[in-house]
Amino acid sequence: MMRMLDIIHKKREGLELTPEEIQFFVKGVTDETIPDYQTAAFLMTVVFQGMNSKETALLTEAMMHSGDTIDLSSIQGIKVDKHSTGGVGDKTTIALGPMVASCGVPVAKMSGRGLGHTGGTIDKLESFPGFQTSLPIERFIQQVNDIKVAVAGQTANLAPADKKLYALRDVTDTIENISLIAGSIMSKKLASGADAIVLDVKTGSGAFMKTREDAVALGKAMVEIGDHMGRETVAVVTDMDQPLGLAVGNILEVKEAIDVLKGQGPDDITELCVHLGAWMLVLGKKAGNLEEGEQAMQDSISSGRALERMKQFVSSQGGDSGYVEDPSLFPATKHMLEVKATSTGIVTQIDAENIGRAALILGAGRENKDSVIDLSVGVLLHKKTGDPVEKDEPLVTLHANDLEKAKEAEAVVLEAYSIGQEQPAKKPLIIEVIQA
Amino acid sequence: MMRMLDIIHKKREGLELTPEEIQFFVKGVTDETIPDYQTAAFLMTVVFQGMNSKETALLTEAMMHSGDTIDLSSIQGIKVDKHSTGGVGDKTTIALGPMVASCGVPVAKMSGRGLGHTGGTIDKLESFPGFQTSLPIERFIQQVNDIKVAVAGQTANLAPADKKLYALRDVTDTIENISLIAGSIMSKKLASGADAIVLDVKTGSGAFMKTREDAVALGKAMVEIGDHMGRETVAVVTDMDQPLGLAVGNILEVKEAIDVLKGQGPDDITELCVHLGAWMLVLGKKAGNLEEGEQAMQDSISSGRALERMKQFVSSQGGDSGYVEDPSLFPATKHMLEVKATSTGIVTQIDAENIGRAALILGAGRENKDSVIDLSVGVLLHKKTGDPVEKDEPLVTLHANDLEKAKEAEAVVLEAYSIGQEQPAKKPLIIEVIQA
Repeated sequence: MMRMLDIIHKKREGLELTPEEIQFFVKGVTDETIPDYQTAAFLMTVVFQGMNSKETALLTEAMMHSGDTIDLSSIQGIKVDKHSTGGVGDKTTIALGPMVASCGVPVAKMSGRGLGHTGGTIDKLESFPGFQTSLPIERFIQQVNDIKVAVAGQTANLAPADKKLYALRDVTDTIENISLIAGSIMSKKLASGADAIVLDVKTGSGAFMKTREDAVALGKAMVEIGDHMGRETVAVVTDMDQPLGLAVGNILEVKEAIDVLKGQGPDDITELCVHLGAWMLVLGKKAGNLEEGEQAMQDSISSGRALERMKQFVSSQGGDSGYVEDPSLFPATKHMLEVKATSTGIVTQIDAENIGRAALILGAGRENKDSVIDLSVGVLLHKKTGDPVEKDEPLVTLHANDLEKAKEAEAVVLEAYSIGQEQPAKKPLIIEVIQA
Repeated sequence: MMRMLDIIHKKREGLELTPEEIQFFVKGVTDETIPDYQTAAFLMTVVFQGMNSKETALLTEAMMHSGDTIDLSSIQGIKVDKHSTGGVGDKTTIALGPMVASCGVPVAKMSGRGLGHTGGTIDKLESFPGFQTSLPIERFIQQVNDIKVAVAGQTANLAPADKKLYALRDVTDTIENISLIAGSIMSKKLASGADAIVLDVKTGSGAFMKTREDAVALGKAMVEIGDHMGRETVAVVTDMDQPLGLAVGNILEVKEAIDVLKGQGPDDITELCVHLGAWMLVLGKKAGNLEEGEQAMQDSISSGRALERMKQFVSSQGGDSGYVEDPSLFPATKHMLEVKATSTGIVTQIDAENIGRAALILGAGRENKDSVIDLSVGVLLHKKTGDPVEKDEPLVTLHANDLEKAKEAEAVVLEAYSIGQEQPAKKPLIIEVIQA
């Protein structure tokens, strides 16, 4: 009979686990027959001894099968999913969906709400009055077949083993292991039924992976898992040393995503959407190579097709598409407060984490499951890294409904900005692309 | 506020913990405010990252203070305790107590029952009809002041943090770490109030420490802890590649201990008693050096003083000392079965673990807390490593009360004995002595 104690011992000795051992572990975590203290001890051995590619793939596969798996086979075409490891000001999904859909690749996105500096994609889309995110699966599939894009809230019981493991990792200091991180992300992605996956792996001060090296390792691990499971996967390592775009907050980000679709978005977020979308077209066999894909993405904007698809998407899900045409309809906050530079010079750094924290303080995100999000609040940046700035010139505008919180957020924003005299080295947004 | 998660992280990074952090951990384990999964994760980090001497000493000290500590200050003289890390056929305490006491060093021994191949010292002593092991502390102290030796069952709540940690280590594969093992042993020893400690660290196939290297490391760690706590400590690393002496079983071992006191014991167990006793006299300031101590120990046997003290000891605790004079009074088993050699040659090895297992099968020890011990059963060896043996010559005699069990034990004994043609290298019993 298999015993968890022996599996811990084997991994502690640095040996490779068998498929049966890995399945035993994941099953025991799922049905709670393995006590938490043994799981915790095992996770710590993995942190020290690691898992090879094969073990990582097997762990991911077992976690994927620990709960529901979504069947999207009745959707025509190659379903390509996109996932970001998370950053500050990341509104790519909202713009990318219509862009890619308008080029003929189906985007069937299940999305969560989660904790964070702002709400998730689902929360942001609810900024459109009437927008429905809880779609019955049949209607969801029908919409993707009709207009190639739908975004719904995640209701299925996806990868419950991962959910339990993650909760335990969080309180036992066993988060930081590439195999465990890759398995956690990929088990959920694989369970949600896409045929191919484009991963945006963020690196930098505002990302979970602080160094390029770690981000590349994570990307590689996830691409290997996709390969093992027969799902074509591309990982793009991108910079998250400062917030993406200028807007951090729910409605603010939706408006910026609309700007992107109108060809008026900030350079960085536009570049990222074009690049990630190009990979989605390549994996979806609607572009022969990356260049063709990028051209198609740019055309989707300049032709107005992407913006048109956005309107269809919003109204298909019951939202008021007039807000896409005229984003000034979105409600404004009671207060708009400028945070001003305290010296003259050049912005040498913007700590993305702190900008996110300022948005959270204003009420844009959830600190815990019961937090209520204020969709209208957030931080709008006027200066990014490398920009010159005069003393008393506004660095950001805080969109706030509470002056006390705005006061607190202001201090955090000032902490986030570093102003110096030397022009910082310009960093590329797209750092590395990893394919199988 | 201190958080266990941060302490796990610090150790995972390989950093030294502060006294406050170690105390926080031990307190949290004791009062169960730290969940088992965090303790398990922490223990696994210790297995991988280790603890330095200072941390080990602090951990031990905190565990020692997690429960009762026994005050033996009303006993005159330097109280020297002896502890063995456990082996097969180890009856040293029973002979050593009277030997050392007869030389003027007080032996105030608190002993447990525990699980094992045979009972503990307490169980063995109960072989004497009437022997009382539950003594009120005042009577215990009075007896030590009167005749320099008393052995009582452990009732105080010694080092509860160790008890909890050990139970968790057992099921999370975190037993094997020198600091944790040393801390576990020493926290209980220190709490039980001796002024100085002689440690018998067993090494070999029948011991927990399989290699000399590990045994020496454990001995050093324990001596360092003793030093830190101001209790003079000596660790003697001794061989446990085969059972100690010839008897394995409760009454069988008591009889062998009496043989030692009569100067008729097997060489190895006699040598070990003389050596360990000599160190006890040195630490108890009743011998100037090891040689003097050994001489005194031998004299205690040849003069009959040790045997006389054994009688006093047994009758002081209500036992029938007539059994010391005439051990044939002890009850015999229903069956005495010889296990015969299946080939002619030389005994090249006796797996001590398997001999112990045979005794356990016969009923000499406890498999779980509720097992009832049969004091009379056991294994009596006729051949030890290096002895020539003829086919069909008896290797051991099984003292059994159940023929079914004897059958099973016979197979295990045959498995334990290796008979070859080459004389094995003779190994010393006393391998190394470690002092501060």
